[in-house]
Order: sequence, then structure tokens, then C-alpha cells
Amino acid sequence: MAGHDEVAAATRAALDAKTKPRGSLGRLEDLAVRIAEIRGTPSPGQLRAAVVVAAGDHGVAAHGVSAYPPEVTAQMLANFAAGGAAICVLARRAEADLHVFDLGVAAPAVPGVRDLRVAAGTADLTAGPAMTSEQLDRCLDAGASVAAELADEGIGIVALGEMGIGNTTSASALAAALLDVDPVAVCGRGTGIDDEGLGRKVAAVRSAVTANRVDRRDGRSVLAALGGFEIAFLAGLAIAAAERRLVVLLDGFITGAAALAAERIRPGTRSSLIAAHRSPEPGHALVLERLGLEPLLDLRLRLGEGSGAALALPIVQASLAILDEMATFESAGVTDAGR
Amino acid sequence: MAGHDEVAAATRAALDAKTKPRGSLGRLEDLAVRIAEIRGTPSPGQLRAAVVVAAGDHGVAAHGVSAYPPEVTAQMLANFAAGGAAICVLARRAEADLHVFDLGVAAPAVPGVRDLRVAAGTADLTAGPAMTSEQLDRCLDAGASVAAELADEGIGIVALGEMGIGNTTSASALAAALLDVDPVAVCGRGTGIDDEGLGRKVAAVRSAVTANRVDRRDGRSVLAALGGFEIAFLAGLAIAAAERRLVVLLDGFITGAAALAAERIRPGTRSSLIAAHRSPEPGHALVLERLGLEPLLDLRLRLGEGSGAALALPIVQASLAILDEMATFESAGVTDAGR
Repeated sequence: MAGHDEVAAATRAALDAKTKPRGSLGRLEDLAVRIAEIRGTPSPGQLRAAVVVAAGDHGVAAHGVSAYPPEVTAQMLANFAAGGAAICVLARRAEADLHVFDLGVAAPAVPGVRDLRVAAGTADLTAGPAMTSEQLDRCLDAGASVAAELADEGIGIVALGEMGIGNTTSASALAAALLDVDPVAVCGRGTGIDDEGLGRKVAAVRSAVTANRVDRRDGRSVLAALGGFEIAFLAGLAIAAAERRLVVLLDGFITGAAALAAERIRPGTRSSLIAAHRSPEPGHALVLERLGLEPLLDLRLRLGEGSGAALALPIVQASLAILDEMATFESAGVTDAGR
Repeated sequence: MAGHDEVAAATRAALDAKTKPRGSLGRLEDLAVRIAEIRGTPSPGQLRAAVVVAAGDHGVAAHGVSAYPPEVTAQMLANFAAGGAAICVLARRAEADLHVFDLGVAAPAVPGVRDLRVAAGTADLTAGPAMTSEQLDRCLDAGASVAAELADEGIGIVALGEMGIGNTTSASALAAALLDVDPVAVCGRGTGIDDEGLGRKVAAVRSAVTANRVDRRDGRSVLAALGGFEIAFLAGLAIAAAERRLVVLLDGFITGAAALAAERIRPGTRSSLIAAHRSPEPGHALVLERLGLEPLLDLRLRLGEGSGAALALPIVQASLAILDEMATFESAGVTDAGR
């Protein structure tokens, strides 16, 4: 298989031969080159996509850090299974398979959602580790297994999504610890909390970072202390997907925090990542900067579920179609002034 | 039919009942409301889309204002007809019909492209009007006829695109005149001209504005003096499409200049417009500001052809699918904390 730089150069040359001014398709061309690098070929062709939504409950939700009560996590799983949630609609529109996984919701299992339950929600991270090291391993391994399954099924692009009342608090704690910044810099309003709720959230993240004095260079320890089951699963999935040359499309802040943890655990994972949407959460910009990613969209979404990733998928697919289907100056008999 | 405000309120209420925090789908929700307003119903359903690419040659191209020679316009028409151009690929991906119109290319007609030719390119606008008043009428009428055809075919969304070597110079002249700003503020590198070329372009726009002392409040006179046949056609199409409640999706700077002229000729046309892509052309931001539009995408495209509009189409369609297909809190049995 050709080297990284050779693949990029060959892909760039193929794009330059297409009937358009050099580079005039902007980020679409960069995207095609990035995917070619990930896949290890200048002719990645069209790729089948899957959206993975991972769900879990969070002990920290008891602190009133979300605009919604914890029971909504399980209710939304039923909604995912019935096809009525936003991500169901958006994945269908993007012609992507949708897979929903329950990593640990604090309610009876929901039919139609794959049961990978580790426990009935994480422990309260403001008082100590959110999960045990053994629980972390189960999440990471489950993510790796799903990545292998998807790759074996012929999926080329996996879009990450999540659901879990309280999980922006966990993601904020991960970002604060992994980036070594003050909680205020990484806490936002999530799905729509008010000023008092935001105050409780910052306090919870501060308590979490204080209660869990882990080495921030140790991705595993940080993830076990401050993560969620669904976040750890997504980190494991990202690591294994990158190893299998799958394109990993991140959604917003929470999947970004999972990716940041994944990169800390397995450096190099970030080479397989594409950022779909710029979240209004203040921590997201810092996470993206560290991962070296620029999102494709900025539509002021603050839902999660993988909604931003699903909306970016047609753009990702379009970049591959350009590479695959456009005529060249030579084949079309068009004068190439940029030669 | 319900009033504008009633439709907007009913659509917003329908979105608020969906299983997601209020407003959490951000611009996707604004888009659904906008389309509902344009269509005059809170249930616009799914809409069929067409991409219209209008082409024409420009007398001003003889001044070396483009990176490409004028013969490329006709060569690209053949490429459109053969399905090899970027817009062909992107329209296919977006499941939109593609219609290509020749409004006046300075070369023999191309089979497979609809012949609406007014003349073999416009006159040199640096020396006087680009077209006669009669030619302008032919372009506007042709655009209106195509809008009627599309509406009769059941098209609900028309995405505008263009091709014409030299047409960013015409668009810059239109923007300078209609917005009453200095040519320097509205001239950019188009598909990739160098510093000297940019200097020639600014000089050409300055000459054009000086040579054609028209009343900038008179949209018809400005469009005849400084427009292109394809730009005038797109203006006519936008006016008639708005009257027929079609959603008009603009691409970048040139379609934006056409829309600005359309709004000047028929105030209120802008209510039916959606901006797809933020062009790197400096004049585009000024045009959008005047039209009150915020683009959906910023992918550093500088191709034209309707490429940005085609890339935004899946987002527009997704906004309608959200309105049409998502479950409500009540139907899905999800606790609604935002009530």
C-alpha cells in the first residue's frame, strides 16, 4: 500500500485534472484527500456509511446539571427504536444505517436497541471515579467489537452520536482534565440549561476534577474517572475504527471529548477523524483545536444524537463523488489554463 | 391561505412539539420555518428540487479579467451536457434534476443544452451597456418562462447556478452600482486570477460604472448596463419563482448579484431566497447583508455552476424531513421539560 504522502499527492493530482480551476472546490477537495489518506488509496470510491448512537446514564445528572430529567435517556432510546427521533430522520435522509447501543441506561432495556449494558448508569463523578477500570475495559472492548463488525459489513464511514442526560457535564470534565483548563472554559448550556443550572454544572465539573486527581497524560485513567459508558464506548470505537482505516465522522462536543480521550489513549487516532459540526459548547473549540480539526458545518445545533454528523454526511459523500465521477480537462476537451 | 405570521407560528409550534429540546436543531429549524413561509403552509412536505445552470459569454472577458479564456464557457457547456462537470455530479448526489440553458455563448450551440441564445455574448460593459433593453426583456422573460415550467412540473425548490467566463466582473459591477460602493470593495479573484488580473478587473468595473451612468434605484437599467445574459435570466427566474412560491436557493456571488438585481426590480423577491454558500468574493458579504441572508455553508468554494447550492440541498431537504417525519413528545411518550 502506498505511503501517506504519496496517496495525498496522487489524490491532489487527480483532483487537479478535473474540469474546474485548481482547488476551486475548496474544502470538498481537502475532504477527498483526507479520506484517501485514511483509506490508503487515491481511489477510495463511494463508501457506505453507518451512524452509531451510544447511550448511557450519568450519576452526575442527580445534581441538576441538565435541562431534562434522567428518565429521558431511556425514553429517547425507545424513540430511536421506533424511528421517530431526529437522528432517525437524518440518517435515513443521508442513506446511512443507524445502530443504537445501550451502554448503561438506568431503566429496563429497550427492545430494538442493542444491549451492551455495563451498569445502570455511571457513579457520581463529583465524588470519585465515574466507572471502574474493569467497566472502562468493557466499554472500550465493546466499541472495538462494533468497529470490527462495521468494517466486516463493508462500512467505510462511521458517524458517531450519543444520548445521555448529563453527558455534556462528563464531556466538560474530560475536556477540563485532558486539556488542563479551568471548568468555566469548557462548560456550556448543553441542550438548554439556565444560568443557575450552568452554575451547578461548573461546580460539578470543578468537584469532579478535584475529587479525581488523575494524571492527565493517562487517557485511560481520565476516561474512567470522568467519562460516561457511552463516551468510553465511542472512544474504543474510534481507536479500533482508525486501525481498520474507517473514516470516523465526529458530531459535536461529546463525541469530540470521546475522540480526545481516544487520541490520548492511542496517539494517531486523530488522523482518521473528520469533524462534522461546530458545537456552541465553549469546550468544543478547544477540543477541536487540540485534535487539529475544522468542522464542516456550523448550523447552531445543540442536540447531539449524531445529528450534525448525519447532516455532514452528504458533503463527505459528495467529496468522494467528485473524485470518482468528474471528467478531466483531457477527457472533456476543456482548455486548462491552470496547468 | 394562512397569513405569513400564522404560518411561521404554526410551523414553530410543530417543531417545538418534536422530541428534541426547543430550538436545538438551530438553523435547520429556521430553514423549515422559512420554507413553510415561502410555500404558505406549515406542512410543506418533501419538495422536488431542480438545479438551473445558466450560461453566457461576456464582452468584458477580452480585457483579461479571468484566469480562463472565453472559449471555456462553450467547452464547459459540452461538459455539462455530457455529465462530467462538478455540478452534474453534485446535482445527481442531491437527487436534483439539472437543467442547463445557453443564454448567449459566443460559439456554436451545444447539443443537449437548451438554446435560449440572445446574442453571441454581451457587449463590452466598460464602453457602454452590456445589453439593450430589448435583450434584457428577452432574458427576464425566458427566466420567467422557465420558472413557470418548473412550477408546472411540480418542482418546489430551484437552485441557481451559472457559467460564463468574465461573469464575476459583471457581478462585481452590478454589486458596485446597486450597493453604491467602490469597485475595490466588490472585486475578488473569481476562479483564481493573479494580482495583475485583479487590477485589470477593478479597472474594468470602474470603467463600467463610469461609462454607464444609470440610476442605481432603477434595477432594470442597472441590469441591462452591467449584467450578463445568464445573470438577467436568473434574475427573471428568481422574480417569477418567488411569485409562484418556489424556494429559490442561491449559490454564491454571481447568483447573489442576480438576486440583488431581482429584488431591486421586484421588491419582495428576497422573501423566497435561501443563501447556500458564503463565497470568498468580497462583494458577496455585502450582497447577502443587503438581502438579509446568512449562507448555510462556508466550504471555500469558488467554482460557481451552482455547486454550493447543490451541496446545501440535502440540508434544505433535511429541514423538511424533520418537520414531516419526527415524532412528537406526546406520540413518543417522552417527558417534555421545555414546556
